[in-house]
Amino acid sequence: MSSYWSKYPEIENQIQDVCQIIEERAHVRNTEIQEAIVQLTQAGGKYLRPAFFFLFTNFGQNTEEKSEQLTKIAASLEILHMATLIHDDVIDDSPLRRGQKTIQTSFGKDVAVYTGDFLFTVFFELILETMQNSPFMSVNAKAMKKILVGELDQMQLYFNQDQSIRDYLRSISGKTAELFRLASKEGAYFGGASPEVVSRAGRIGYNIGMTFQILDDILDYTAKPKDFNKPVLEDITNGVYSLPLLFALKENPTAFKELLDKKDKLSPEELNQISKLVVANHGVEKAQDLARKYTQKAMDDIQKLPKIKAQKQLLQLTNHLLKRKI
Amino acid sequence: MSSYWSKYPEIENQIQDVCQIIEERAHVRNTEIQEAIVQLTQAGGKYLRPAFFFLFTNFGQNTEEKSEQLTKIAASLEILHMATLIHDDVIDDSPLRRGQKTIQTSFGKDVAVYTGDFLFTVFFELILETMQNSPFMSVNAKAMKKILVGELDQMQLYFNQDQSIRDYLRSISGKTAELFRLASKEGAYFGGASPEVVSRAGRIGYNIGMTFQILDDILDYTAKPKDFNKPVLEDITNGVYSLPLLFALKENPTAFKELLDKKDKLSPEELNQISKLVVANHGVEKAQDLARKYTQKAMDDIQKLPKIKAQKQLLQLTNHLLKRKI
Repeated sequence: MSSYWSKYPEIENQIQDVCQIIEERAHVRNTEIQEAIVQLTQAGGKYLRPAFFFLFTNFGQNTEEKSEQLTKIAASLEILHMATLIHDDVIDDSPLRRGQKTIQTSFGKDVAVYTGDFLFTVFFELILETMQNSPFMSVNAKAMKKILVGELDQMQLYFNQDQSIRDYLRSISGKTAELFRLASKEGAYFGGASPEVVSRAGRIGYNIGMTFQILDDILDYTAKPKDFNKPVLEDITNGVYSLPLLFALKENPTAFKELLDKKDKLSPEELNQISKLVVANHGVEKAQDLARKYTQKAMDDIQKLPKIKAQKQLLQLTNHLLKRKI
Repeated sequence: MSSYWSKYPEIENQIQDVCQIIEERAHVRNTEIQEAIVQLTQAGGKYLRPAFFFLFTNFGQNTEEKSEQLTKIAASLEILHMATLIHDDVIDDSPLRRGQKTIQTSFGKDVAVYTGDFLFTVFFELILETMQNSPFMSVNAKAMKKILVGELDQMQLYFNQDQSIRDYLRSISGKTAELFRLASKEGAYFGGASPEVVSRAGRIGYNIGMTFQILDDILDYTAKPKDFNKPVLEDITNGVYSLPLLFALKENPTAFKELLDKKDKLSPEELNQISKLVVANHGVEKAQDLARKYTQKAMDDIQKLPKIKAQKQLLQLTNHLLKRKI
């Protein structure tokens, strides 16, 4: 776990419990899979989804009595996230993730594909252990499908210079925002919050997820590789055109055409050129504006939550998120 | 669907319903995924798992009333099987499956990985729709995990000349027999059979699954490529040493050492040489003997089932299975 939560000792402890569950569930005869999972849990991820989950559990009561159940649900969220990350890296052939070698780079494609699959089964197992007879079983199945469909939508748009902002938003709403929504909604629900808070939590999670992904995509254009811990602009050569590029493309399609027509054959210099063109054509600026709108929506809803400590922490975190550099 | 079931018109109709559900569930915006799934359903698979499922439903009563539920469960079995097949082909880089191009060959690795993942979500969805509040939710989660662990066990044994027959049997009991067990047990249970028949069905399914996989592995050494519809002995260069080779290796390790030490660098001539050595060292013979033992166990249990039409069909099919050439 990273030091991201050092100012929030409660969350830090809860996330440590989550890591322990993940490592316990990774105990299989196959040592490579086990190592792969442990490597990923220790790779400095931020555990944002479990963190939002736990924050929202505070809007209920007697959460201590059900802490084992809650920790398992939090783990299920991170595990589903890990499974999709690993398969994304197989598809992108990414060398790095969170500044460390990806599972595929360290252990090969075989281990990467099966580790993802194995984590899907652990996800399924945890869901069954914790939410039998609750409507959230189906909510989870639907969420998992939406996440996948978001990834598929993104794949369908590879190298497409004519895709709309709406296409992009639809794809990230599935591949990223859906899991933040699920985490927040489940936190409120299983914590025992009122139906009103549960539905507000879902909206907050969704809007934070949208912000988070847009900011992640902006960092491709603003962060230095050493800060960002992943290869910058790798998305473009993979055919994934994110929001800053799409905004700049709308403003000045001809400036990009010749470069983007080279698809995955772009040199580092050409990528650098694209990056500068995106900034010059207000791509980053407009993406930041849109991220701010999603943040504002989340903030408005957080303001309306019961005024407990977790509410203040949510405000702080959401503010902090908007300023993220890594 | 293949013509495999033309002598069993009821099963043939039921399998057609299963195909329809699979194709309906494949309706996503992503046309490649949809095509990939449709291609696979029409590729001439034998639909053995749904077929065994349906045969065992006959040991219950009033199955017509719940035919929609039963068809969905049968589809869930085939879908789980398809998901694992697709990911296996990604891992093996197999060019062909069922005599046709694999999803990876036709559509690329991206589509193959995500199609498998997508099918896992459809599996999850179907399970939730059909067996909420039944103990079979957990049975399914455990089965899915066992199947994965079987694949992992196999991966752990890649190129291992010292693996035991027990290692091999453990791996195939997960990767193949488990799903046959699940199919048969679920058929009996959801058809409404007695607990005794349900547990007998599980055993029968398991033993038929073991037979099926051993015979599949024997075919690598006895079938001509044009009959078998998949590259012969591809397993060996992928590091998967199956039962005939393992038996022959036990009998005469030195005969194989130099060849197998070449691992994935074996020429077609050398593979041919291994094939002949396996036959000469009684590998095929001994594997056939073991397959016969599993078949006999299945037969003994089938004999003890209620003497209805489905029981006769199970006897026929199991007999037929032992003689399979493709």
